[in-house]
Amino acid sequence: GRAAGTSHTVVQGPGMIIETIVTTPAPTHVQIVPLGVRREHSLFLLAPFRPSATLDLLLRNRSAVINHTDDVRVFAGCLTGRYHWPTVPAERIDGQRLADCLSHSEVVLERQEDDVQRPRLWFREVHQVTHRAFPGFNRAQAAVIEAAILISRLDMLPMSKIDSEMAYLGIAIDKTAGEREREAWGWLQSALSAHRARQQEKPST
Amino acid sequence: GRAAGTSHTVVQGPGMIIETIVTTPAPTHVQIVPLGVRREHSLFLLAPFRPSATLDLLLRNRSAVINHTDDVRVFAGCLTGRYHWPTVPAERIDGQRLADCLSHSEVVLERQEDDVQRPRLWFREVHQVTHRAFPGFNRAQAAVIEAAILISRLDMLPMSKIDSEMAYLGIAIDKTAGEREREAWGWLQSALSAHRARQQEKPST
Repeated sequence: GRAAGTSHTVVQGPGMIIETIVTTPAPTHVQIVPLGVRREHSLFLLAPFRPSATLDLLLRNRSAVINHTDDVRVFAGCLTGRYHWPTVPAERIDGQRLADCLSHSEVVLERQEDDVQRPRLWFREVHQVTHRAFPGFNRAQAAVIEAAILISRLDMLPMSKIDSEMAYLGIAIDKTAGEREREAWGWLQSALSAHRARQQEKPST
Repeated sequence: GRAAGTSHTVVQGPGMIIETIVTTPAPTHVQIVPLGVRREHSLFLLAPFRPSATLDLLLRNRSAVINHTDDVRVFAGCLTGRYHWPTVPAERIDGQRLADCLSHSEVVLERQEDDVQRPRLWFREVHQVTHRAFPGFNRAQAAVIEAAILISRLDMLPMSKIDSEMAYLGIAIDKTAGEREREAWGWLQSALSAHRARQQEKPST
């Protein structure tokens, strides 16, 4: 919700959600997962679903890296079976960050609130590094993020809604995408085609 | 267009369009204008419409600042009559940059190609400064950019298309916006309401 009396100079109002890539160590690999993160003043609120490997790992490790990358292939890849992205060691915590990111925050678990569906974990930033300049807004990158969210909800949405939203998002891809955005878009379209084929195999109701 | 054989490690493929805020001095003020900019290897391609004050100023000044800000109120504001945003002097060229930006590039005109509708101006970056870390993707910021583009085309689009796209974009606002994004969205909605009122005053055809 919005805080009453917030000044217009506020940089990120409470309630703002950032689409991030969270990395945290698993026994045999680095868990790399897209996660919407809410900024609450100096804390990051993460609310992974129960049950999930991400929830288990965050509770066990009690730390994570929140990566900000403009390579939207990581978002699209993690939703289409492409989980392996180069990582390098974090600086202050026992973990890994994305090798290619604009900036990253290293965070540690400060408090938690249990919930049957989405436990709420508040992390405090202990270290932040800027690696590269923000190259500016690209509409195709935003379209890939939207399409990735859509593809993650395929089983909950009617095909007509998915098709019309993908057609709308495809306009920004056609007009403004670079190579990486086109590749990410292709992966999401393939996932959608595979879903459509599975739907058509089902007996009609 | 796309370059054949581009490596997958390319950071910004040719053809990628970035939504920027361009600042360039006018006799009595600083011209602040949202402009889509195409990266072409080491050059920025700007193609302002003819006739426009922006085209005249860019040709006269032969330099500009390309600003990258995550304050989407600047984009929405410039389309709704709010042209005054704080600026400070550029470092290497005679001009001003946005005071609040994540990064900016100072560029000088290198070559131009005339066109009756959209002359093409290629600028070379002579200086680049990163001011703040990229805080991560926010869906509401992307929705404000899309809505701003929509509002800039009100007279070319049917109301039904505008209403359905605004309703779609509003979902990301409701779910992920901070204070600045809500304020920008409010300005665009007011502009749309004013346009609707004007439409209803017209005799029906």
